[in-house]
Amino acid sequence: MISPDDLPRAEPDDPTLLARLAARLDAKTKPAGSLGRLEDLAARLGAIQGTDAPTLRAPHLMVFAGDHGVAAEGVSAYPREVTWQMVMNLVAGGAAACVLARANGMALSVIDAGVDHDFGVLPGLVDRKIASGTANLAVSAAMTVAQCDAALDAGAQLARDRLRQGCNVIAFGEMGIANTTAASALAARFTALPLADLVGRGSGVDDATLARKEHVVARALALHAGATAARDALAALGGFEIAMIAGAMLAAAQARAVIVVDGFVVTAALLAARAIDPTVTRACVYSHLSGERGHRAVLAHLGATPLLDLGLRLGEGSGAALALPLLRAAVAILADMATFDSAGVASRRCEKGRA
Amino acid sequence: MISPDDLPRAEPDDPTLLARLAARLDAKTKPAGSLGRLEDLAARLGAIQGTDAPTLRAPHLMVFAGDHGVAAEGVSAYPREVTWQMVMNLVAGGAAACVLARANGMALSVIDAGVDHDFGVLPGLVDRKIASGTANLAVSAAMTVAQCDAALDAGAQLARDRLRQGCNVIAFGEMGIANTTAASALAARFTALPLADLVGRGSGVDDATLARKEHVVARALALHAGATAARDALAALGGFEIAMIAGAMLAAAQARAVIVVDGFVVTAALLAARAIDPTVTRACVYSHLSGERGHRAVLAHLGATPLLDLGLRLGEGSGAALALPLLRAAVAILADMATFDSAGVASRRCEKGRA
Repeated sequence: MISPDDLPRAEPDDPTLLARLAARLDAKTKPAGSLGRLEDLAARLGAIQGTDAPTLRAPHLMVFAGDHGVAAEGVSAYPREVTWQMVMNLVAGGAAACVLARANGMALSVIDAGVDHDFGVLPGLVDRKIASGTANLAVSAAMTVAQCDAALDAGAQLARDRLRQGCNVIAFGEMGIANTTAASALAARFTALPLADLVGRGSGVDDATLARKEHVVARALALHAGATAARDALAALGGFEIAMIAGAMLAAAQARAVIVVDGFVVTAALLAARAIDPTVTRACVYSHLSGERGHRAVLAHLGATPLLDLGLRLGEGSGAALALPLLRAAVAILADMATFDSAGVASRRCEKGRA
Repeated sequence: MISPDDLPRAEPDDPTLLARLAARLDAKTKPAGSLGRLEDLAARLGAIQGTDAPTLRAPHLMVFAGDHGVAAEGVSAYPREVTWQMVMNLVAGGAAACVLARANGMALSVIDAGVDHDFGVLPGLVDRKIASGTANLAVSAAMTVAQCDAALDAGAQLARDRLRQGCNVIAFGEMGIANTTAASALAARFTALPLADLVGRGSGVDDATLARKEHVVARALALHAGATAARDALAALGGFEIAMIAGAMLAAAQARAVIVVDGFVVTAALLAARAIDPTVTRACVYSHLSGERGHRAVLAHLGATPLLDLGLRLGEGSGAALALPLLRAAVAILADMATFDSAGVASRRCEKGRA
């Protein structure tokens, strides 16, 4: 099991490495800084990997699925069976995340973290089911602490397996009817931001459902007011897929792999991971600003600047898959662009002794 | 030569096609609209191509280079010879645009529209040199109308050649020391926006140079106040690479090819093309919001929403190359995502007869 005490902390950024990365970028044939946030991203990738020549190997999107007891409160626009049906769609390759991952040359795996369905033997589905859905977080803890620990551990193991196979970039996605309710509750607990900024329409609920959802989250927060320690809060308010993502993120960060953060639910998982080990965010790249209310506030809380802002609000890792080409581009800039010296290009006017 | 009278106008958007595209997107396994601007992009690509199953074939980045007489006014941070040196770098594959195009599977060609340098025989450089740089637009017309027409025509021919070879997506980039000065002048003429919103730091000029640059543009606008017709304004205030891009855009739009617009200078070329044929914008996809002052105002004037906002201010087509994966993703969503029916996924709660 992951305990904060066993964790080797991620290395802090090395200032001499950051300076080397900045110098490499400034030597490239372009006005200094003119590639904007692509340069910041290149430097971040270098800092994560501890090198001025970062590389991306076998990028992988892990999509974790789970059901949520809180769906019984009527907080989603879709019936609960959509979770397992979408798992089938993800395994079959027809979901948005599959299409976007394929389009961008990214492998994808689908993990049953706790879906309320018996899939039998389903090739392509990784079975790590903790239970058939969480308990209703508005009534009791969503997970026992033992279940939560098991989910964290399973996520960490899956990430380590992936990294051992040569991958050094893991993107995270999720599927789970009602999981934005759990994510809002976790975000409220870990950021202390007001609920009105954190509870949104998820898959598209109407005004009445939105009001009910906010009320459900408020009840859950009151019910679990005593669950303030990171693991206790995650167990009380989270979900199996969320805890597994948090565990996988912690393992990925320890291994200096790049974590590609997706939308609101994955960012809520990151908040939980960060409450366990604050250094996890050093390994993170933020793929996009979701259209789901709550994401903007949570990213701002993290001091994170997302790469894309396309109004996506689908989850599944769709935004993370879309952002991968920007990571590749950032790495390519460092690796492949000519320098002023190598290309024989004059640098600024003053350096040429001109007026 | 391109004359507004010879142009077959691009077809207006077909409302039944737009409805078909919307229905196809809504049938996909995702909450309606949850892929945000990626769905708008998919619909736009379909509308441009006149089909609900758009495809991208042999995407190509055309980088046009030219020198500018107005560089003599000291409006750039870099000496004039950087234009030809960067052309060499583009041809050798070391420039940012080359690296980004390669990273995204996009072919690139480099066109000498009017660089002040004798390249001799340089494999990989397309020679369409109109003259060795324009005249100083603050003193006389940058181009004669005959030169401007020749540039428009050369651009149109190059685009048509490319399309005949099977390409249906052309992205545009440019290189030319001092060309943001010409672009600012064109933007002012074609939008009537205030100069303070349109003149920026280009490759990174200091405050004194910025003030001089704005003064030079104001002088040029006063000098050429009579050049109000589209071609006259382009000739007086533009540049060889800018006019060639405008001509290529007009030809691409006529052929229902997709035009990927890059940053400020390419958008200024689009303003000129649009003044010749207002329907050209129907074929356009806006790749990014540049960090160059002026781009935001000009895009707003066009009612255009750029895909990326990464603070790029390099030109060369760097933003257009970076956005290509989003176009591919949009096409893939339409082509490859399962539908609720095909995947056996339940749609919204009410449609299932649930509470």
